[in-house]
Amino acid sequence: MSDGASVRILGIAGSLRRGSFNAATLRAAQELAPSGMTIDIFDIAPIPLYNEDVRQQGFPAPVEDLRARIKAADGLLIVTPEYNYSIPGVLKNAVDWASRPPEQPFDGKPIGLMGASGGTLGTARAQYHLRQAFVFLNGMVMNRPEVMVPQAHNKFDADGKLTDQATRDFLAAHLAAFKAWALRMR
Amino acid sequence: MSDGASVRILGIAGSLRRGSFNAATLRAAQELAPSGMTIDIFDIAPIPLYNEDVRQQGFPAPVEDLRARIKAADGLLIVTPEYNYSIPGVLKNAVDWASRPPEQPFDGKPIGLMGASGGTLGTARAQYHLRQAFVFLNGMVMNRPEVMVPQAHNKFDADGKLTDQATRDFLAAHLAAFKAWALRMR
Amino acid sequence: MSDGASVRILGIAGSLRRGSFNAATLRAAQELAPSGMTIDIFDIAPIPLYNEDVRQQGFPAPVEDLRARIKAADGLLIVTPEYNYSIPGVLKNAVDWASRPPEQPFDGKPIGLMGASGGTLGTARAQYHLRQAFVFLNGMVMNRPEVMVPQAHNKFDADGKLTDQATRDFLAAHLAAFKAWALRMR
Amino acid sequence: MSDGASVRILGIAGSLRRGSFNAATLRAAQELAPSGMTIDIFDIAPIPLYNEDVRQQGFPAPVEDLRARIKAADGLLIVTPEYNYSIPGVLKNAVDWASRPPEQPFDGKPIGLMGASGGTLGTARAQYHLRQAFVFLNGMVMNRPEVMVPQAHNKFDADGKLTDQATRDFLAAHLAAFKAWALRMR
Repeated sequence: MSDGASVRILGIAGSLRRGSFNAATLRAAQELAPSGMTIDIFDIAPIPLYNEDVRQQGFPAPVEDLRARIKAADGLLIVTPEYNYSIPGVLKNAVDWASRPPEQPFDGKPIGLMGASGGTLGTARAQYHLRQAFVFLNGMVMNRPEVMVPQAHNKFDADGKLTDQATRDFLAAHLAAFKAWALRMR
Repeated sequence: MSDGASVRILGIAGSLRRGSFNAATLRAAQELAPSGMTIDIFDIAPIPLYNEDVRQQGFPAPVEDLRARIKAADGLLIVTPEYNYSIPGVLKNAVDWASRPPEQPFDGKPIGLMGASGGTLGTARAQYHLRQAFVFLNGMVMNRPEVMVPQAHNKFDADGKLTDQATRDFLAAHLAAFKAWALRMR
Repeated sequence: MSDGASVRILGIAGSLRRGSFNAATLRAAQELAPSGMTIDIFDIAPIPLYNEDVRQQGFPAPVEDLRARIKAADGLLIVTPEYNYSIPGVLKNAVDWASRPPEQPFDGKPIGLMGASGGTLGTARAQYHLRQAFVFLNGMVMNRPEVMVPQAHNKFDADGKLTDQATRDFLAAHLAAFKAWALRMR
Repeated sequence: MSDGASVRILGIAGSLRRGSFNAATLRAAQELAPSGMTIDIFDIAPIPLYNEDVRQQGFPAPVEDLRARIKAADGLLIVTPEYNYSIPGVLKNAVDWASRPPEQPFDGKPIGLMGASGGTLGTARAQYHLRQAFVFLNGMVMNRPEVMVPQAHNKFDADGKLTDQATRDFLAAHLAAFKAWALRMR
């Protein structure tokens, strides 16, 4: 954890694609974070498929790492696409692993959600399903502002840099609100 | 596909645990299927984590197999636990892989849902999230009867055999209705 | 009901506002319905607040009328705004009344959903909640195409006539698909 | 509002039925509230059907009253049945009215949810839809414990008094947690 006025956030992207707009949005968030907020990124690619028989033998190393980093963070920022009107399986799988006993690291944790998509609905349906999962896990999901970046292909350059100024401003506003939320929920 | 009065169903369990009550429920369904309905089981354990960069190189063999078997089936029976108030990541991951272009094998496919759990809510929340996914994928999900087996630990013996007679009767009734649904939606 | 190749649809708007874009979309649907499909409109404004004590004395006349008209129709077309990320209370109240015993008129009924809104998410969240209600009621809700008309204020003239040609074409395509769905589900 | 250590809560039941188990649960909550928490009950029966044309002329008196009482309260306790797998229309209608501009009284308000039902799923589906509505309205809905009272007909006596001791204890625990939540979110 951190001192009184600063927060360390763990960021997770819900897509494994190298050129993912959501991973790019998470990198943009790192850059746009307000003073006193740092965002570290955890890559979920090494998390294996969840299997309770495996867990009984001990958490796989990448899961242990994820759990420790969630626990140590002042908040969690999830930036995710929507797959088939719901949460990407790869992201839900990481949440499923991380949530298992003995300790449940999402309990009481401030959580911010974002998503980028090529369409116009902009990942809303995935975000509401995630919110329901975090009711069970007692995550403290911020209500507002909701960040759903539509038509992402028009807002990033070829290097995956967020170039759309209105979106940059909106992200910065969300991140400032999330910093305040994380401090308030501490 | 099959002749006019019989149906071949592909069954998928949403848990990888060896002693899974949902896998056991799926085996019970095989046994309790009405005359003219056969249920083959597909094991999702070998399906890797979805990554669009990988797909661009071609579907992994287990995914190709899953897609072909869904396409060939007259219907799909999904028997799944609920993880964290939503769809298990491992199951959603299999759906995400199977759904990708060029062909989308869930399109128009009759689908039945079941779930077993140790609690009392019996997987309802996972089933409603799955139903929303299948709106996008144009799956023909049967409305009724909904099969949610609560307190599963009291209904199976040590070998994973469904011994509770009321649950056996309910499953048989659901399977007869699902056969009629699959024939109607053909 | 109707003869083999034509369908009579009951249309319901989810808003009581006189200048409602959803009521206007429903009128546009009447105009754009394919040959062999007629759409009659039922106004839910006279439906009182649902109270089971009242029902025990008999259905109020407007509810009796709604129930009879749903029962007589070959399908139901609901055109609704989204209020507070869910179904408008006034629409849900009409569904609650209509659904009560002894007969449940939504059972097996083909249902099409549409919505118009001033924003960009276009009523999606209300439609998924309605879909869940119709799982319980065994309504046969068509999956596709989903009709969500965003930025409705730019698509109607001052008299509430739908002037946007792309939207008119999309509505016509949805209505043709809904006619086929209603015939198939008969 | 109230002094530092006590909270005044507004309670709303989602059913208009005189013998409603949810109204009875709300009365039980009044009785079981911890020291420093008082619960006043607002009856939504006089709230008319929402119509924006009416609102343009001014809020009807019962709506004005509801809005003022939500605004004045330190938190909101909603005790509701589930109708057709979602929020009762009459309750959603009251929320729709109360939410309208200029002021939005749910903004930042601590909210607790409860529900009683005759079945076993105990109103869960209505509560998740309400939670989604309060994302939009920026209500601060407590995650835990979730109160879903199943088989309510076995837990109240003929006068609507909650007699089941385990349920009484569970309600008391929820109310103590809700008091802490309301103080924390102030």
